[in-house]
Amino acid sequence: MDPNTDSVYASLLSDINSPSDLRKLSVEQLPRLCSEIRKFLIDHLSKNPGHFASSMGAVDLIVALHYVYNTPDDRLVWDVGHQAYAHKILTGRKDKFEWQRTLNGISGFPNPLESDADTFMAGHASNSISAALGMAIADKSTPGHEDRKTVAVIGDASISGGLAFEGLNNASNHPNNLLIILNDNDMSIDSNVGALHSYLSDLTTSAGYNRIRNKMAGFFRRKGILTDQRKRAIIRFNNSVKSLVSKKQNIFEGLNIRYFGPIDGHDVIKLVKVLRDIKDMEGPRLLHICTVKGKGYKTAEENPAAWHAPGRFNPETGEKIGNNRNVQPPLWQDVFGKTLVELARKNDNVVGITAGMLSGTSLAYLHDTMPERAFDVGISEGHAVTFAGGLAAAGKKPFVAIYSSFLQRAYDNIIHDVAIQGLPVTFCIDRAGIVGEDGVTHHGLFDLAYLNCIPGLTIACPSDEETLRNIMFKSLSLKSPVAIRYPRGKATRIDWESEMRDIETGKGRKTAANPGARIAVLALGPSLHDARKAVDILSKDGIATDLYDMIWMKPLDIELLTSIPGKYDAVVTIEDGCLTGGFGSAVIRQLKSSGFDIPVKTLGVPDCWISHGSVGELKHICGYDTDGIVAAVKDLFTSLHEK
Amino acid sequence: MDPNTDSVYASLLSDINSPSDLRKLSVEQLPRLCSEIRKFLIDHLSKNPGHFASSMGAVDLIVALHYVYNTPDDRLVWDVGHQAYAHKILTGRKDKFEWQRTLNGISGFPNPLESDADTFMAGHASNSISAALGMAIADKSTPGHEDRKTVAVIGDASISGGLAFEGLNNASNHPNNLLIILNDNDMSIDSNVGALHSYLSDLTTSAGYNRIRNKMAGFFRRKGILTDQRKRAIIRFNNSVKSLVSKKQNIFEGLNIRYFGPIDGHDVIKLVKVLRDIKDMEGPRLLHICTVKGKGYKTAEENPAAWHAPGRFNPETGEKIGNNRNVQPPLWQDVFGKTLVELARKNDNVVGITAGMLSGTSLAYLHDTMPERAFDVGISEGHAVTFAGGLAAAGKKPFVAIYSSFLQRAYDNIIHDVAIQGLPVTFCIDRAGIVGEDGVTHHGLFDLAYLNCIPGLTIACPSDEETLRNIMFKSLSLKSPVAIRYPRGKATRIDWESEMRDIETGKGRKTAANPGARIAVLALGPSLHDARKAVDILSKDGIATDLYDMIWMKPLDIELLTSIPGKYDAVVTIEDGCLTGGFGSAVIRQLKSSGFDIPVKTLGVPDCWISHGSVGELKHICGYDTDGIVAAVKDLFTSLHEK
Repeated sequence: MDPNTDSVYASLLSDINSPSDLRKLSVEQLPRLCSEIRKFLIDHLSKNPGHFASSMGAVDLIVALHYVYNTPDDRLVWDVGHQAYAHKILTGRKDKFEWQRTLNGISGFPNPLESDADTFMAGHASNSISAALGMAIADKSTPGHEDRKTVAVIGDASISGGLAFEGLNNASNHPNNLLIILNDNDMSIDSNVGALHSYLSDLTTSAGYNRIRNKMAGFFRRKGILTDQRKRAIIRFNNSVKSLVSKKQNIFEGLNIRYFGPIDGHDVIKLVKVLRDIKDMEGPRLLHICTVKGKGYKTAEENPAAWHAPGRFNPETGEKIGNNRNVQPPLWQDVFGKTLVELARKNDNVVGITAGMLSGTSLAYLHDTMPERAFDVGISEGHAVTFAGGLAAAGKKPFVAIYSSFLQRAYDNIIHDVAIQGLPVTFCIDRAGIVGEDGVTHHGLFDLAYLNCIPGLTIACPSDEETLRNIMFKSLSLKSPVAIRYPRGKATRIDWESEMRDIETGKGRKTAANPGARIAVLALGPSLHDARKAVDILSKDGIATDLYDMIWMKPLDIELLTSIPGKYDAVVTIEDGCLTGGFGSAVIRQLKSSGFDIPVKTLGVPDCWISHGSVGELKHICGYDTDGIVAAVKDLFTSLHEK
Repeated sequence: MDPNTDSVYASLLSDINSPSDLRKLSVEQLPRLCSEIRKFLIDHLSKNPGHFASSMGAVDLIVALHYVYNTPDDRLVWDVGHQAYAHKILTGRKDKFEWQRTLNGISGFPNPLESDADTFMAGHASNSISAALGMAIADKSTPGHEDRKTVAVIGDASISGGLAFEGLNNASNHPNNLLIILNDNDMSIDSNVGALHSYLSDLTTSAGYNRIRNKMAGFFRRKGILTDQRKRAIIRFNNSVKSLVSKKQNIFEGLNIRYFGPIDGHDVIKLVKVLRDIKDMEGPRLLHICTVKGKGYKTAEENPAAWHAPGRFNPETGEKIGNNRNVQPPLWQDVFGKTLVELARKNDNVVGITAGMLSGTSLAYLHDTMPERAFDVGISEGHAVTFAGGLAAAGKKPFVAIYSSFLQRAYDNIIHDVAIQGLPVTFCIDRAGIVGEDGVTHHGLFDLAYLNCIPGLTIACPSDEETLRNIMFKSLSLKSPVAIRYPRGKATRIDWESEMRDIETGKGRKTAANPGARIAVLALGPSLHDARKAVDILSKDGIATDLYDMIWMKPLDIELLTSIPGKYDAVVTIEDGCLTGGFGSAVIRQLKSSGFDIPVKTLGVPDCWISHGSVGELKHICGYDTDGIVAAVKDLFTSLHEK
């Protein structure tokens, strides 16, 4: 029987609507189910894009876990979680899967607000061990929960984050029976980095190890010395043999966590057997499994980085649909990445740093051109920033490219290791503002609020490519830290490679003037373009407004702001970020402290969590797309009129 | 000769004003110099309090480092840095030492703004490896700097932080010759925790290891097989022997860092010899030294936790001066700690978590009473919060006690692992506001700003013990996260153990009313007491004001705020935190969005870095002590009068 034909594909999966349905299958049926799930994923993700390669790689593990464990009573805790699509499919969300990542559809990540089977929020890497440890320890002292099992599933990239290490370091402090599954696919989104990575490869490639260990154990058993009392000594000896054979020592055992593996993560029957073997053991354990990203879809297996989140594609041919960067305006990240190469050519001290996001931030351009000046430190945002601080202290000019929501993980590093010392590090904050389909964990909404309170930090929000380039250029001459934020997606112009020029910090500019304007619209960042459309619409409707591109969150353009009350009757601010502590709040405070009492309407993201959907949909809901701006200005205009 | 007599004490140290002076001594003179420095420290720190025990323990290491390395051209990077007093003494700050930690005196921590010898900011743990790695890699590509050496000195507690692991994991990625010194005194401020800690003890206590290793090496050498090509195999073999002998594997070698030690960190002559041996080796190395906290002062050696920062003491007897908690109001931290024990008795789900600060946060009370319900996870704030999230997800009610400035290290964990999920974790934020002598790295000034933008988080600032207790009690019944901030130092009343009562969230209260008041003073937190004094003074001067204890930063008391413009002509806000994004900013924004244009004067910490000094001095400088409040209200009153 060919498991890839539709008739078969429907046969097992169509009857499974919960993990208990799955557990009615025989072990022998599981490989077929895995094939059906892969077919399901290919069908759906080719039409409705999502995280493809890692999800394909985790199918067998997910089936085995739900088969062996009594989920959802037993708890599975995912790390990052974009590999957990099969988990969603098996836990009652199969029929909603075509709406994943769309407005009001299911999330692309595990989310406890969506399903009891999703035990903890996933999205930011490396949190699973700490969270699962909390659950495992809590259960031990909760009447009736003592026998619940908790399993954390973490990838080889996520485990390099400091938070994961903190979790491992604490795993043996209190009684618990946490199982950590290290899903080792030898990849983060880009290639994996760090000593731990080569360490894991060495563990994995030491094919002889298990064989030798078994022989040793047999030898000791025959000699009658494998008694219980001697077990610890044997384990020690085993570890030292492993150390010899694998060229390295086992770090996990050094942290008092029993280590099992590595085993093939695509052999679902073996996975079931091993999980059953270790399920009821006491104490923290780690099972190391090896998987292939994109497993079951050949082109993805061959180029997993390109198939991390491939967008729409033709499932038969693997051809990607509608993904041509050339004939459109550049991505913001590419403007950053290519401009950094130019700056590096001009200035020998320029270096670039990212945390596991070489291609996502487009630092890859510098890495390809001058590999010794581009540092991908893996998933470790804190280290990325402190490392940049060290580079700057020794005379380099580091540009640190990190997504806005991930930069939250380096908040103290920004304050303590860069800003207090006034070190000239430039933070290039990608994916700032609403990011769309990745949803609540990935929106970059808080950066302006959490950065604005840091003394001595310059914060810029360019509205177009030219301004981004000029600010990056400007930051080279500043002797203090600079943060530049720009959104996910496309910038504005096809022909964008302007000559870089000096730009004055803390100076905004008027970009549209309409005779008789009584309202000033102050836009920060690319929201300027929505504002411009709104200003044109309003103008046609007889409401004249002037439009300002404010560019700088800090320092605010006080001269411009204090000129407003003399010229206008009201102000509207627009920003792609949280209103609490954001740009609008800062404008209100500045006008108040300058003694002006002009009405100010602030548009941006209100004080609530924003789910997933397209960027346009979400901005519309928040009320700061073009429609929202038009409506707000009309309201304000009416209220002025009434006065 | 007795090195503890004054005449001797002066003889060597008095001639040393820079590391190059030190390097003129013979190796044999170094032990005497170490004794002199210890005498100097005892003399000074008994009068002018500071971090005693860790500084005493690091004297020999510091002398050896400056003796062997060409400082300050070669770079020493300290971690936390309160152990580096001897470094300050040897690098030109001996004569300023009596003013350490006082206003305009030298800092208690290394600070690059104070001296070139302080290469990087220290204060928050675990950053040294990342920062030093940045310097070491930068030097490799900086003409003329290729031969500079960089040494990071990190304690056994600091190395348990995730940031340190991220640094270790990246240490071998790029060519560098970083030396990491692990100063292992088997202690953080409180006892050390975590698997890494017991791992290090095992390494340390494996006395036989070095002997066996040397014998092995000799054997191989005699057999003629210790060739360069075989070196790697030998190292592997050594590691496996070490693994056998020490019961554990060497984690550092697993991360591609050469490991040396452990050696006695108080044998300065041996330290010099070993440092010279490994100084010019290429590639990252770690030297593990063992030291005793408080070394050279017997009572401190015997009880190092109590002598971490002992305050003033009699140098002859070891008797501490003026440190009696009983006859004074309680410390804020004790109110928290004792109240938590009461809550834990009432509610079986209550648990407490701290990150290496059992006594500093007074979570020690719970730990002493119900050890299984108090978790000290060591220096790993991120893990502490995510772990609390896991506990909450499994039905527990965690109280997380962390200092404000250290909570910056868990910012993403608060957002991603607690707040998005609405998990009922209570954050008890100690040392919030200006902390005084510990200075710029330790003030807790940003918490209100960085927390206020997080949706669904309740933020409270009690002004007294009773309110703190009631808010902690209230948080038990809330199904969402709560942050409670309170300062370092003493609360207000000797008789403070009131019965806990329900308190309404988002409701402030009027605490002083004066007939004819035209100005409302809104205080948040214990600044209320300075405000109360100011209100009394103003009243005597004929300026009537009303005083409000606002208690809640989020939700703001909108009803109270919107009633203000009808009753008063102006508002003054007072907070012990940064003005940018803080309470005053939130009040201004709320009044504006409610359509009111009443003048608001905000008092708090301006947008600049605040150095060290007493809390009173620093608040005075910032203008929100009683004097500052009086002056601000008078100014405001005058300006209202002029209108």
